[in-house]
Amino acid sequence: MKQLQEDQVAVFALGGLGEIGKNTYAIEYKDEIVIIDAGIMFPEDELLGIDYVIPDYTYLARNEDKIVGLFITHGHEDHIGGIPYLLREINVPVYGGKLANGLLRGKLEEHGLLRRTKMIELNEDDVISFKHLTLSFFRTTHSIPDALGIVVNTPEGNIVHTGDFKFDFTPVGEPANLTRMARLGDEGVLCLLSDSTNSEVPGFTMSERKVGDSIENIFQQVDGRIIFATFASNIYRLQQVVTSAVKHGRKIAVFGRSMESALTIGQELGYIQAPKDTFVDTNQLSRIPDNEVTILCTGSQGEPMAALSRIAHGTHRQIQIIPGDTVVFSSSPIPGNTLSVNKIINQLFRAGANVIHGPLNDIHTSGHGGQEEQKLMLRLMKPKYFFPIHGEYRMLVSHKKLAMDCGIPEENVFIMDTGEVLGLKRDEAKKIGKVPSGAVYVDGNGIGDIGNIVLRDRRILSEEGLVVVVVSLDMKNFKVSAGPDIISRGFVYMRESSHLIHDAQKMLDKHLRDLMGQKTTQWSEIKNEIIELLAPFLYEKTKRKPMILPIIMEV
Amino acid sequence: MKQLQEDQVAVFALGGLGEIGKNTYAIEYKDEIVIIDAGIMFPEDELLGIDYVIPDYTYLARNEDKIVGLFITHGHEDHIGGIPYLLREINVPVYGGKLANGLLRGKLEEHGLLRRTKMIELNEDDVISFKHLTLSFFRTTHSIPDALGIVVNTPEGNIVHTGDFKFDFTPVGEPANLTRMARLGDEGVLCLLSDSTNSEVPGFTMSERKVGDSIENIFQQVDGRIIFATFASNIYRLQQVVTSAVKHGRKIAVFGRSMESALTIGQELGYIQAPKDTFVDTNQLSRIPDNEVTILCTGSQGEPMAALSRIAHGTHRQIQIIPGDTVVFSSSPIPGNTLSVNKIINQLFRAGANVIHGPLNDIHTSGHGGQEEQKLMLRLMKPKYFFPIHGEYRMLVSHKKLAMDCGIPEENVFIMDTGEVLGLKRDEAKKIGKVPSGAVYVDGNGIGDIGNIVLRDRRILSEEGLVVVVVSLDMKNFKVSAGPDIISRGFVYMRESSHLIHDAQKMLDKHLRDLMGQKTTQWSEIKNEIIELLAPFLYEKTKRKPMILPIIMEV
Repeated sequence: MKQLQEDQVAVFALGGLGEIGKNTYAIEYKDEIVIIDAGIMFPEDELLGIDYVIPDYTYLARNEDKIVGLFITHGHEDHIGGIPYLLREINVPVYGGKLANGLLRGKLEEHGLLRRTKMIELNEDDVISFKHLTLSFFRTTHSIPDALGIVVNTPEGNIVHTGDFKFDFTPVGEPANLTRMARLGDEGVLCLLSDSTNSEVPGFTMSERKVGDSIENIFQQVDGRIIFATFASNIYRLQQVVTSAVKHGRKIAVFGRSMESALTIGQELGYIQAPKDTFVDTNQLSRIPDNEVTILCTGSQGEPMAALSRIAHGTHRQIQIIPGDTVVFSSSPIPGNTLSVNKIINQLFRAGANVIHGPLNDIHTSGHGGQEEQKLMLRLMKPKYFFPIHGEYRMLVSHKKLAMDCGIPEENVFIMDTGEVLGLKRDEAKKIGKVPSGAVYVDGNGIGDIGNIVLRDRRILSEEGLVVVVVSLDMKNFKVSAGPDIISRGFVYMRESSHLIHDAQKMLDKHLRDLMGQKTTQWSEIKNEIIELLAPFLYEKTKRKPMILPIIMEV
Repeated sequence: MKQLQEDQVAVFALGGLGEIGKNTYAIEYKDEIVIIDAGIMFPEDELLGIDYVIPDYTYLARNEDKIVGLFITHGHEDHIGGIPYLLREINVPVYGGKLANGLLRGKLEEHGLLRRTKMIELNEDDVISFKHLTLSFFRTTHSIPDALGIVVNTPEGNIVHTGDFKFDFTPVGEPANLTRMARLGDEGVLCLLSDSTNSEVPGFTMSERKVGDSIENIFQQVDGRIIFATFASNIYRLQQVVTSAVKHGRKIAVFGRSMESALTIGQELGYIQAPKDTFVDTNQLSRIPDNEVTILCTGSQGEPMAALSRIAHGTHRQIQIIPGDTVVFSSSPIPGNTLSVNKIINQLFRAGANVIHGPLNDIHTSGHGGQEEQKLMLRLMKPKYFFPIHGEYRMLVSHKKLAMDCGIPEENVFIMDTGEVLGLKRDEAKKIGKVPSGAVYVDGNGIGDIGNIVLRDRRILSEEGLVVVVVSLDMKNFKVSAGPDIISRGFVYMRESSHLIHDAQKMLDKHLRDLMGQKTTQWSEIKNEIIELLAPFLYEKTKRKPMILPIIMEV
């Protein structure tokens, strides 16, 4: 990163633009850095076996002494999931809303970081001042309570970060603070960082209230059990189910760890209101008539280990589908999960359930605002410079067009890359360099120890399998003392391919004896010979190219 | 399959219901079997490395002498792709429309089956009579020319198979033969097998003509190059692009093997009309002004090796994206491809192209009819019994509901499983048993040689990687003569984990010496010991569970 000028504000993302890690932003001015969010990403299938992806925190670790705090916009995984990994590297105070902090606390405990971390609860009206930077907040609407936009007041002007937002005028919780947003716009916003997720979606996102009406309709019409799957973190949705269940005299049993913990935290913090005895223990279910049962469960994204998948496949310990059950998917599958969700829906139909899903049933709404809401934000904030965030590149481009439609000159809109730094002054904005950035893979205990070589190997292994050739060589007497043996995994079914393996063995054996006769001592040469002989041999017979792993032992 | 009664018609699917193989149906009466279609399926990601899935043809192979012919409804892969594999097992005459036969011919040639296969060209008005069964046909509308519905007249009544269809009243090619369908319904349809693909989609599918209007709009508005990606087999779409290109004075260059061959076959058979000099060689492109260029290419489903993907990633030999290019995705991604399509769209935007995609642009329409069209088919055919085909289980269920809405009694609708046989008489229909069925995996040269064990191994290898332990034992003197050596692939990056590997080696070494001291001779026991020691050791250090492959060599 180029040296900052004395009076310049630097704004950059380590994740949240395109696909690297997830939402992690920083605003730096002189000797102060504010971090906004530290999210985690669930990898796509091609990152074989990787559990999570986080951003490269190098820059933050190097500048730990400048960081005044990490501020959380809301408690979704893609905004708080990376915090434990970040806090392993740096120790900084964390500021978040009541719910976000509540959800984070569990994570920090799991990672053994809770005790040493200073957590401060944020309220919308708080003003937090550091030497140069002063932070204030404004309430937004999102699919989780306590969503905040963040204002970083700098000597050069206000930098506003919207977090994730929509404008739901009839929300289940508190409405967005339009007044404060308008006032901010009036005071002047130097640069707006705004959520681009739905920038390709025309119009206004449907109100959560409408979803409540659909839920109520289902409860009115259904006689059998209602099995309701949704995101555990969507506290509003859970409340709406609770409300309808209570109204129709149904008890609620909860399946899935994250759902149980969301309901516990939600009730503890007062976000979920339910009369005593609403929730029943799962093993009491059999004693309750079907038309008095609601089941709330995880797995609406088709996650194979979640409650709903196990229920659908008949492998759940406590509950099976019975004809007459109605299963509601109060969710929309993210693109990578469409196939798994499809499978579960088919499975549920096969088991005799009726399944309510899909956009036609108004049973789910997005947490992100559509184009009109994004334009409303732009019109309220009237920023001088615009930095679209959260979303794939195409969504950033689409958001840029919306901003231009709202009168922001093209040269004042910056589509940034991960790590790229926007340098801001009162009357100037330009890209001023890059900080280290990239995707870091978390696999089991390992953070960043799985790189492209390991992934490439996994890819080959997964598609073509493996053939191991082992041979023991007596390098004193230049003799093959045992082998070559051939073992394969994921290549062909060995028992049915014994002739193929046998032929390969004979071919290699002959050649290895020749090599020994020539007194070859270079192992790498012998290994290469094995690969170069075996690969075309196997390809010709099978049209497959397994990974070949020659192992030479000297005895 | 239970013995057929003398006067019973058996109808079953080997593929096309749910996910096994793809569309392959059979109708059997006494000593005659008619096969309708023999499709192939492209596997989902979880079938690691599998190229195609075809149905189990055992029943057809066993009853080859009864088969009077294979009849093709249209030339899509999921209806003709399995034919070469089926014809490897049985030799039967193939009847298909001009285009389907044209497309099939290339496949048969590749498999060396063309010369020995009798191919008969079908026209809508043909009537083909065997001993008991008589086949006739009716033209339908689909996203490929020459789509036919098939009527199998049996002594018990008419069995009608719709193939894939929609009702486009303003199609680009010939309209569907409503008259003949109505007449059939009037004569009486004993059982209807009808396409369920869009049974969850309300309304009527948009006309191909409307897509033509959108294409024309794009050609009117765009100044730079137009890069148009669509399905090679959608000859109508290609014709519409050709029409607009010619009208606006643009030349067309074609990228992608299947697109080239579709255009060649389409022109040869008269389905595509283009003035001479419309098509230019790809290496002439640089000499033509941008606003006179159209590029037609494959890859609209995000296929990584197709032309569009390589163009987007800048790895295409002949063409790069330049700012001002407009890329049109005239397609909608099938669920499994959404992520790959997303990536390419992002990549194209990054490269400076404008991208037109998505349902909002009316740039693509389905080849399958929506609910109203399915109901129209039901109302025209007025079948006594209904057997919904083509589609996932949930779509069959949805189609069943539509049939009931159209007055077919629930007990006359049969949701069938792959291989399940519906026995039909004039006044009776019931499930009468099963024929052998299942999915057969094609991987490279191998058909059916990849089973669940190999796939399970590939799955573990892909997610956790592999650790090979090799040791040479001298079983005469009970000594470890070399090793243990540890080699891993896809597990951890070896160079950075040398201490881990070293510790594991030391631990195993000590234990193997102990085992030798105890004069253990059972290799299986030694191998188990290695796994049982190493697995928890590695899990504790890495929280990963690689496949462990112990190899013992005796010297």
